[in-house]
Amino acid sequence: MNKGCMIVCDGGNGAGKSTVLRAIEEHLKTKQYDYVMTREPGGTVIGEKIREVLLCSDTPEMCDVTELMLFAAARAQHVREKIIPSINAGKVVVSDRFDSATYSFQHYGRGLSLALIQQLNNIALDGFKADVTIVLDIDPVKGLERVISRGSDLDRMEMANIEFLHKARNGYLEQAKADPERFAVIDASQSLDVVISDAVKVVERVIARKLG
Amino acid sequence: MNKGCMIVCDGGNGAGKSTVLRAIEEHLKTKQYDYVMTREPGGTVIGEKIREVLLCSDTPEMCDVTELMLFAAARAQHVREKIIPSINAGKVVVSDRFDSATYSFQHYGRGLSLALIQQLNNIALDGFKADVTIVLDIDPVKGLERVISRGSDLDRMEMANIEFLHKARNGYLEQAKADPERFAVIDASQSLDVVISDAVKVVERVIARKLG
Ligand SMILES: Nc1ncnc2c1ncn2[C@@H]1O[C@H](COP(=O)(O)OP(=O)(O)OP(=O)(O)O)[C@@H](O)[C@H]1O
Ligand SMILES: Nc1ncnc2c1ncn2[C@@H]1O[C@H](COP(=O)(O)OP(=O)(O)OP(=O)(O)O)[C@@H](O)[C@H]1O
Ligand SMILES: [Mg+2]
Ligand SMILES: [Mg+2]
Repeated sequence: MNKGCMIVCDGGNGAGKSTVLRAIEEHLKTKQYDYVMTREPGGTVIGEKIREVLLCSDTPEMCDVTELMLFAAARAQHVREKIIPSINAGKVVVSDRFDSATYSFQHYGRGLSLALIQQLNNIALDGFKADVTIVLDIDPVKGLERVISRGSDLDRMEMANIEFLHKARNGYLEQAKADPERFAVIDASQSLDVVISDAVKVVERVIARKLG
Repeated sequence: MNKGCMIVCDGGNGAGKSTVLRAIEEHLKTKQYDYVMTREPGGTVIGEKIREVLLCSDTPEMCDVTELMLFAAARAQHVREKIIPSINAGKVVVSDRFDSATYSFQHYGRGLSLALIQQLNNIALDGFKADVTIVLDIDPVKGLERVISRGSDLDRMEMANIEFLHKARNGYLEQAKADPERFAVIDASQSLDVVISDAVKVVERVIARKLG
């Protein structure tokens, strides 16, 4: 049996990840692919518990290294318990965020050393890589406006200052520039129809290459 | 002002750590030392949340690497938020478990590579070391009997098999042999009075050396 593939949808807060992922799921369902929708931090029972610790807005005292290790712990569990078994079973795995977010927020955003992040990501991923990471690129001010107009409260990460979010945005663009084969940047300020149709094209391209 | 010091009480499940620590606390109170009692995993609000994830008995699917990273995350927060500031304020910090437990349980017990554990501990500790680690040495069968006769349910770690616990016990003894300056092994099968009086002597020796 063919192996499956791993597609990530990532980008700043309010870029439209969840909305685009719902459209991708619709598409996969219509095409009758065997798929799994998942997210980071989270995706497993243990990972969702870690997510709660990470996003809790009552703990501003969380140290950068603690945060990094919690993301890595959730990712280690996610890869081993869910992602790799699903790919081995031939499924299309689609994740809301993945390691690209750690590089953007913790390295480019918070300034943690690339070496430290690579060390922890390497332990968590154990050689695994997503086939493609779709980056929904948005001005962070616009992203937060969308989150607020969606009616959500801001979580611990979203309450970070705007300069941090600008740096994180730049981090996504830098990653994409450094590895154009594995990244697809979509301008998320475009109308939702255009964003979705671009994203679905990327998904179809990867599926054709990996499962075709 | 003099800096404080860090004393760890560690050992197998049911060795008597909590009981001995209560006696140590009584002693520190009587002597009017400025002290802080703490524990791992835990010791901070964030660490206690991580502890809940680690000890939850409903998640046997937790991977070894995930477990290791969660311990490291809790430790990173503990050192930065609580231990180092307390030591800088001249306090005697006394912890129920610390990095010695990770070496014993994850390396000697579960067989995770020493290099991996050192990598994560180094990140978490950032050069910090306890002044002394008191190891309460007990046959694990006897330790579990004590836990059960105390009336406690067994947590996820305690439900591990007995061979694992024997290896972990050996791990404490190996660490003590390799670094006799920083470890003090006490035979915890002795009567509680003897165990407590031996432990208090170790505490007094470190305090005399560091704060005296
Ligand atoms: N291209 C778009 N144009 C206009 N509005 C959009 C667009 N994409 C998403 N939105 C709206 O912006 C809001 C945030 O979108 P969504 O929840 O999908 O973002 P997200 O990236 O998942 O956010 P979060 O980072 O909070 O998970 C929603 O109300 C959504 O309908
Ligand atoms: N030296 C001893 N002799 C006899 N009983 C003891 C001795 N030390 C402790 N106990 C008893 O054993 C039980 C377990 O002790 P305690 O809770 O202090 O162990 P612990 O190492 O903290 O266990 P845990 O690993 O569960 O935290 C308690 O009921 C305690 O009173
Ligand atoms: Mg979302
Ligand atoms: Mg105890």
